This record gives sequence, C-alpha cells and structure tokens, in this order.
Amino acid sequence: MQGVTSVPGFKACGIASGMRRSGRKDLALVLNTGKKPVAAGVFTSNRFAAAPVLYSRAVLSKGATGMRSVVLNSGSANACTGENGLKDAVATAKAVGTALEIDPRQVLVCSTGMIGTPLPMDKMLSGIETAAASLSEEGGADASWAILTTDNEPKTVHYQADGYQIGGMAKGAGMLAPALATMLCVVTTDALLDAETAQKALEVACAKTFNRLDSDGCMSTNDTVILLASGESGKAPSGFTAALTETCAQLARKLADDAEGAQHTVEIAVTEAENEAGALIAAKTISRSNLVKTAIAGCDPNWGRIVSELGTVPESVCPYDPSKVSVLFNGVQVCKNGAAWGNREDVPFDSREVHLEVRLGAGKAQASVLTNDLTHEYIHINADYSS
Amino acid sequence: MQGVTSVPGFKACGIASGMRRSGRKDLALVLNTGKKPVAAGVFTSNRFAAAPVLYSRAVLSKGATGMRSVVLNSGSANACTGENGLKDAVATAKAVGTALEIDPRQVLVCSTGMIGTPLPMDKMLSGIETAAASLSEEGGADASWAILTTDNEPKTVHYQADGYQIGGMAKGAGMLAPALATMLCVVTTDALLDAETAQKALEVACAKTFNRLDSDGCMSTNDTVILLASGESGKAPSGFTAALTETCAQLARKLADDAEGAQHTVEIAVTEAENEAGALIAAKTISRSNLVKTAIAGCDPNWGRIVSELGTVPESVCPYDPSKVSVLFNGVQVCKNGAAWGNREDVPFDSREVHLEVRLGAGKAQASVLTNDLTHEYIHINADYSS
Repeated sequence: MQGVTSVPGFKACGIASGMRRSGRKDLALVLNTGKKPVAAGVFTSNRFAAAPVLYSRAVLSKGATGMRSVVLNSGSANACTGENGLKDAVATAKAVGTALEIDPRQVLVCSTGMIGTPLPMDKMLSGIETAAASLSEEGGADASWAILTTDNEPKTVHYQADGYQIGGMAKGAGMLAPALATMLCVVTTDALLDAETAQKALEVACAKTFNRLDSDGCMSTNDTVILLASGESGKAPSGFTAALTETCAQLARKLADDAEGAQHTVEIAVTEAENEAGALIAAKTISRSNLVKTAIAGCDPNWGRIVSELGTVPESVCPYDPSKVSVLFNGVQVCKNGAAWGNREDVPFDSREVHLEVRLGAGKAQASVLTNDLTHEYIHINADYSS
Repeated sequence: MQGVTSVPGFKACGIASGMRRSGRKDLALVLNTGKKPVAAGVFTSNRFAAAPVLYSRAVLSKGATGMRSVVLNSGSANACTGENGLKDAVATAKAVGTALEIDPRQVLVCSTGMIGTPLPMDKMLSGIETAAASLSEEGGADASWAILTTDNEPKTVHYQADGYQIGGMAKGAGMLAPALATMLCVVTTDALLDAETAQKALEVACAKTFNRLDSDGCMSTNDTVILLASGESGKAPSGFTAALTETCAQLARKLADDAEGAQHTVEIAVTEAENEAGALIAAKTISRSNLVKTAIAGCDPNWGRIVSELGTVPESVCPYDPSKVSVLFNGVQVCKNGAAWGNREDVPFDSREVHLEVRLGAGKAQASVLTNDLTHEYIHINADYSS
C-alpha cells in the first residue's frame, strides 16, 4: 500500500463536493490520529502566495506541535482573491475543526486550481461534513485522486525505514518550478518527531528533490508540502532526513513522469563543476530552454542548443572554460572540448528517460535537475485550459 | 526602397553558394563605398560566442575606422567549432579582402545556422568570388534574403532623417533573447560619423530595442549587430542616436512579427514601477512564461498566470505590493488590486497585436518588452529542425 494512510496513525478520504463541474473527487481530508502529532511545512516563495498558503503558514508558525489535519481542494486555488479569500480559508479550517471536534488551529488548508476565482464555500462546507464522516485508514487512495488537476494519475509513495514508515501523496503536472516547495504534497510518518526536527528535515528534503524539479519554469502561487508525524512508532527515528529525502525524490519523479504533455522525463546532470550551487543554476538554466526541450521532443541530441544555453550562465556564478565542456546524451558523447564529437546518430532515444550530462571540466562538484520535453500536447493543454 | 543599399555609399548582393541543400540564397556581402567608412558592432554575451563573433569583435576593436565590408552566411553558424572554426573565419575575411582588393582587416564576418558543424569552406570561397562580382547598389534585397534561416520573410528598413538616411536588414525568428544584441543585423547610414560616436549610438539603440525583444528566452551564440557609416551625406548628423533607435525598433518589431510559429505579437508593458530596471526585469520575466504565452495562443486573457509569474520577481529587484497590482489586456482591465475585475470576455483578441499592461502601483517608471505567443507551430519547427 502507498499514500498518506499507508503508515500507522492516519485516516484520510477523498470525496466529490461538486466544486468541479465534472463531478470528480475534489476534496481531500487527512487526519493525524497519533498521540504525538507534529507537522512541518514548506511553502511557495511566490509574492502572490494564495490565501491558503498565507493562512497555513501563519497557523503552522504558531503551533506545529499538535497539528492534526490537512484539508485540500482542487478546482479553485483561492489565489488572488483578496480579503475574502483569506476569510474563506479561515472558514474552511473552522468547519473542519467543528466536523472533527478539534481546534481550528490544528487544521492546515491547501487549494489548487484556477487562480482568481473565489472558493465555492457552500460546496466546500457541505463537502467537509461528508468528508469528515468518510475518513478511514484506507482512504489515502481516494485522497490522492481528489487533489489532482491536469494530472493524468495520482502520485503516492511508501517508504519502509528502520523502525518507522513514511507515506505520501502529491499532485502537479504543470506550473512546476518550485522555489522552496512544489505544488500540493502531504507526507505522513509514524516516526516520533519534535516540531523543529520535522521542519529541518522537510526543508532539506525539499531542497534536494522538489526544488530540483522544473517542468515548465512556472512557479505556482499555491505550492505547499506538508509533513505530518503521528509518533505511533513510539521512538525517535534514525536517518530520518535521508529517508524523507528518498520519499520526496520518489514523489518528485512521479510528478516529472506525469508532466503536462511530456513524452520524455529528462535528468540534466551538470558535473565536473567548481561548486554545487553553480552546477545547479547551470542545470536549471538548461532545463528551462524551450529549444532544448523541443529538441528532446523531436528525439534530436542537439547539444548545440545545450551549450548555447549553458553559455548564458555568468562566469561569476558558474566558472568553466567553454573549450573544455563535454556533453553526453544517454551516455553517448556528442560534444567534446566545446566542439562536435562522435556520431550523434548513435544516441539511443527508445525509452521515456533521457539522461543528459554536461561536464564542465572545472572541478568535482555536481547537481542534477529533473525536467521534461516540450510537446504539442503541452500547448494543447495550456492554450485551451483556463487555469 | 528599404535595406542596406537604400542609402548612398553602399553596395550589396545575396547569392546561392550551395552551402544550403535547398539551393536558396545563403551568402550576403555588404560593401561600404563611402569616402569616410566607419563601423560599430554589438555582439552576443554568450560564453560560447561563435568564431565569427570572436573574430569580428577582435578586428573591430582594432580598427572601426576604415571598416569596409561585412560578409554573412546562413546554413552554418560556425559556432562550437574550436580552433578550426576560427581559422575558417579568418580565411573567409581574407578571401573577401582578396576579391574586393581591400585589407582583410576591413572585413567583418557573420554566420548563422546550425551550431557545431564546420563551414563548408570550398563553397564559401567560391561563393565569395561570385558575390564580389555581383555587388550592386540595388543588391540590398538579395542580401536580406541570403541571411534568413527559419524566417518566413526578409526584414528590411529605411529611415529618412534630417540630412541623412539609415537603412538596414536583419534575420531572426527563433533563439531570440538577445543580451547585448540580436541575431544578425546590418544597419547602413550615409551620416558622417566617427567610430566612437557610432559605437555609442549603436549600444544605446540596441539596449532600447533588440535587447527588449524576447521571442523564446533562448540567447544565440551568433548575435551580431553591425553599423556601417559611409559619410556620403557629407556632414555630421543631428539626433543620430534617436534616429538609429527608431530604425532598430522597426527591425525588432519585424523580428517579433515573424517569430517562429507565432500567431500574436505581444507587447508587455510594466508601468507604475518604482524604477525602470525593475520594470524591465518584471516585463522580461513575464515574457518568458510558457503559461502566459500558451494562454495568449489560446486567446485567453489569463491574468492569473501573469501575476503568478510577476510574483517570482524578488522584491529587492522590483518593489511593489501585490494587493495594488492591476492587469489590462488590450486595454480592458481584468485584474484590480491583485484580484479579478471586470469581465474577461470583453477582451478583444481579433488582431495579431496583443498589448498587455501590468500596473504595479509603486511609482512612475515603466519598461516594455516585445514577445510572441507559444504555438503548436513553434513545437513543430523546433522539434523537427536541427539548428
């Protein structure tokens, strides 16, 4: 089993509140039933952060210990909705508190969907009552369906560590260029954690995983990653940050694999760099090039577009000598010392995964970024869908 | 008449050397026949600058006064070609010098096309002989055709100033995100200029025009803008920088109008900013959002995508209060004080031109950027074309 209820101490559900015209599931609720509940959160750095982000960030900063529940809806992002949007987020938390008989300050709120439209509060409030009555220890799968927007499939995960477990769910297929977090994600664990340890571990895990995922260069107003710990395993975990990072990496990979219209999931590794920060910026810069991404859509190992994008990274940020740069496409070298090398027709393009390595010849540091190709289907989804 | 031979003191031609398999024109030559020849140049800041850029920059820095000729080829960019590429650029200039009976140091070299493939020097050298014999005072039109790659049509211009004239040609339809210059462009004038005045005027004109054009966020390795002055008008010009800026603005507009696959030319104006530099960065950031560009392709006034992109610009770079931001699409306000406003169905989308205004409510400065939408045709061109 995978998902948020795959570890002890959690109940969840996903229901159709009627917020989405299609009648699909659109409201998820996660409840931490553990005796030592703790939460942590990482949020978007977008200056137009949505009302649920502003609300959850504030509530979490005042009481991560004892945090019990997360309510998530798809269909409306409650972003750019002004004072009324904030009131709606507060009313949502209050309704969950009443329905679950807990303090509203023990409830976090996440929304995703169309920017600029108000939450349909009548449907939200009646949906919360239905959801509260539907909570179960098998509800993780339904919850993972309820948070999707343009995703083709739900993303869930389970990780068995030494003496504790981690489960999780995430949504996101477009507008994936997190800066501090990505889209909506709830990770649960039965590890016994204090709030500070939980928050630090989540920040490290996000920096290494979701923050190195860039689908289309567009950062959302609603990105939120929540960690809920139930403490049901009864003991403090060993190697928790590494286990959490691995869990988040698996979810990040699933987000990339389902990116809007993508035919290829692309890992861009910048190696032999002088320092990791510079390598990461170089990898992100390459990952945002529409010309690199369309070349991969066309199964064309076009290293010229890669080095020309690399050439836009300032020397002060990422020092290297252009005449020492090499490029490998799926393990086949196509550029050596800044010029053509080998036979580009030898590059295999038969699997979804594409591995791109750019060797700078400037040191021993490296960094990788996950991205995807840019296809006709992406244009179709985003020219026709109002989001 | 428009183009590089539309002003006194210039000859040009465009011929088919056989470098392009299609048999189209691929080699252009421009000769300054004036008595007081002077040149200026602005080049790409890409660290993988192509051999012709390295060569022309060096030659120009040693002798802008007396510079007589520019040779331009399409089909091969002579970029990422190492030492041999540089030798080929030198040999090209030398061949032009011999054919025109001038010093090779009076010749600038520009190339555009595929990155990483060597110049076909046999065709280049025989082509130069043909071209030298074809030079004429009516050759500007042919020259403007010979420099095209994915462009649908040539871009030429003529500007009548007070006592002097300016003509020009440019190519470029993709990989248009100049940082210091754009693609290939030759501007001619009969104004009497010294080298320093010419260089300063060109730098100002580029900063205000080509550097505010961003088609697909991708900066080329070969961007070059050359100004050639013949001095044939016999006198120092008045208002030259303004006239040159207007000329370059007309060419920049033509580049945007012919951008790869574009159905809309989009002007993004960020107004009511605290300072111009911040407004320019905000406008460029919005212009690089694939979600904004696909929305415009779908004729959708999706202001949510605009403010969410604006929200990624750091406050230190561009100060504003999100709750005071407004957005207008083709003159119709769709967002006020950071929230929905008016009826987005009132936004007209019936012309190619789209005007987007983002009012920050933070001051009186402003800046504009030209871009275009992101369409199926862009994917088609760039997934199938090896460039």
